[in-house]
Order: sequence, then structure tokens, then C-alpha cells
Amino acid sequence: MIEMAETIAVIGGTGNLGAAIARRLAKAGRTVIIGSRSQESAERAAAELGFGLSGRANANAARKADIIIIAVPFAAQAGTIADIAPHCAGKIVVDTTVPLVPPKVMRVQLPPEGSAAQRAQSQLGEDVTVVSAFHNVAAHKLATDEAIDCDVLVFGDDKAAREQVVELAGLMGLRAFHAGALCNSAAAEALTSILIFINKNYGPGEAGIRLTGILE
Amino acid sequence: MIEMAETIAVIGGTGNLGAAIARRLAKAGRTVIIGSRSQESAERAAAELGFGLSGRANANAARKADIIIIAVPFAAQAGTIADIAPHCAGKIVVDTTVPLVPPKVMRVQLPPEGSAAQRAQSQLGEDVTVVSAFHNVAAHKLATDEAIDCDVLVFGDDKAAREQVVELAGLMGLRAFHAGALCNSAAAEALTSILIFINKNYGPGEAGIRLTGILE
Repeated sequence: MIEMAETIAVIGGTGNLGAAIARRLAKAGRTVIIGSRSQESAERAAAELGFGLSGRANANAARKADIIIIAVPFAAQAGTIADIAPHCAGKIVVDTTVPLVPPKVMRVQLPPEGSAAQRAQSQLGEDVTVVSAFHNVAAHKLATDEAIDCDVLVFGDDKAAREQVVELAGLMGLRAFHAGALCNSAAAEALTSILIFINKNYGPGEAGIRLTGILE
Repeated sequence: MIEMAETIAVIGGTGNLGAAIARRLAKAGRTVIIGSRSQESAERAAAELGFGLSGRANANAARKADIIIIAVPFAAQAGTIADIAPHCAGKIVVDTTVPLVPPKVMRVQLPPEGSAAQRAQSQLGEDVTVVSAFHNVAAHKLATDEAIDCDVLVFGDDKAAREQVVELAGLMGLRAFHAGALCNSAAAEALTSILIFINKNYGPGEAGIRLTGILE
């Protein structure tokens, strides 16, 4: 269980997805630090979002946190992880990275490691427990108080850590499921390109997925 | 549009998925040949399923068909394609292969080509239009007349060919969507391992997905 006293850092928390995650968790009463490359941007975003959020430079946010959520574009993933890695040992790092390669974001282009999540794990090393999630939720919907019609698939090799992220999603008002080992993250990461394609071809920009046929 | 006069072959049509597809298409009034490694097995399965189905050895079934559906296990994909390849030129081949690697079928293990669909295309060559679909539908549900609570994602580099497979799915009573280029098949192929994991952990063995947030 996630203790109320635990601090959550959202690295890249000034971006669309990061800000939406930080806001929902802070609104749920959790202690959340927004991280950004510059402390000033982080502080500004935190002040704008309200709900008691604070802002720090990424490495500093990671250092203060018990749970670290990474919400940066694929192109920034490796650099960001290099920046925060010294402060991740022994912690759960939740990677949300989707390996989109512009301009062809409607084409699945998984990295050689198999998935962005596996790339993160390999960069962070065995002292860090990487879980991946939140690949398919539309950030502009998550930024509102509306109900989200999209399930969250949670991947990771450590079941207890996965359970914490399932809980985090629940705090954010999302329905989430254990979806297996970290390598399975490839499925949700790839699915985002499909959802972008579906949005372009079927509109109106809010495509998501729901699991069916399960006991609830 | 798929003409009523067109013949559809289901290669591996004695397996669970193949038989279910063949039965639904034949029940919808289409001319469907079940292919199997042995003509006898094919004829037996066709007679058992009824609906005017006939049975032939795989290569023979492919030769007689306008549209060819491959429904074999991953381990049999390359051998089956080698067998039917001489009869595929100029035709649409619908690959349903999911790259499950027993015993770890709950782990995503995509092939080096990126997806089983791309592997099929590369083996069949440019004279053949490969479309992939039907990766996520539970075969034992499809084998019944029940409504299926799972969408079909259809992948292919040729939009008109994709449209024919969207139509085929419609004939089978399934809701189907264009989901982009053939390489995007990785998403649906990987998702099957997730659904197997979800079935094991959340029961009762009928997990599927529905797209949400789209205009219908």
C-alpha cells in the first residue's frame, strides 16, 4: 500500500501527461513534487496547478521522492534518466514513456531493447524497480476532472511494485490492471501508435481501450 | 467490396481459430474452403461444421481461393507459408498469427522482424498483399453464435485490402477497425500475451478489448 506520508515526484511534470498525473494525485491528497529541467518552470507549473504541489529541478525532485514517475517524450527519456539515476536506488520508478518517433507517430517503432520500459530498466540497473503504465490515456482528458474511459495496463517484474502503481492509478480515478512482466510493456507502448491512427481516422481524438470479458 | 462469388480459404482451418472463422463466414453465406495439412482432416472438419464448407489440403485450398486466411500456430507459420506461397501471388493473405512462444505465452516475445505479420509479408514477397487481423478474439467464443465483446484491429499497408478484411470481420459479426500499417500488427500480436495474463489473473478466460472514445 502507498503510505500517505510517501512523496511522489513526477519527472517531466510540466508536460501534458506529467502535469495531469501530478494534478490528479495531488488532488487525491498525496504529496507530489513536479520535476522539470529548470526549477523555475517546475515551481511555476506547481503554482498554476495548485493542490499543494511544489516544484523542483528533476534530480532534486527525484532525490526527495519515495516513488518517481517519469513522464517525458521518448527523445528525452535517456537524458532524463541519466539526470535522476543517482537518486533512484531502492525506489520504484514508474516509466510512462511511449517510443513515438516523429514524424511517423502512427507507426509502431519499438526500440531494440523491446520496449521503452526495458530500456529504462537497463539504464537504471537492478537496484531500481521499474514499473510501466499510463501509456494509453489521453493527457488532455486526464488533465480534467472527467471520468476516463480507458483502462491502464501496469507492467513490471515485481508484483508488489506493480500493485502500488495499480493503486496510484486508482487514486487518479483510473481502472488499472496487472498486465504482466516489464517486457509486456511493448504491447501498451505499441498500442499508443494505433490509438493515434484511430483518432486520425475515426475521431474525435479521445480513443482509448477497455478490457472486456473479465470478472470485476 | 468482397464479391459473393469470391472463395475464401482458411489455412489451418481445422484448428480452433481457423474452424471458428470458417464457420462464421460460411454461415454468412460465403464460399469457404477449410485447408489442413491432410485433405482427410480438412474434409472431416468441413463436414462436421456444415454450412456448405468443403475441405482440401492447404496448398490446394490456397490455389482455389481468392482470399487466403492463415490460422496456424506461430511455430507452424513459416512452414505453412512455404507450402501455400506458390498459390498466393496477386491475392490478399490474411495472417492471424500470434507469436506465442511456449511455455512463456504470457510474455510478449515479438520476432526479430517486428511482428509475425511482417515475417509473413517478407516470406511471401511483394506480389502478395498481407493484411493481419483476428489476434485478440477468443477462439472458443468465436466458435459459438454468441456476440463477441472484442474489437478486431486490422493492419496492412494497402488500405483497400484492409477494408476487405474489415468487411470480412463484419460478416463474422465482429466490429473491426483500420489500425494502420502492417508493422502496427506488433501491438495486437503483443496484446494477446497480455490477454492471456489477464485471463489467468482476473478470469474467466474471455478477456478482450474494446476501443473507446471514437465516433461511431
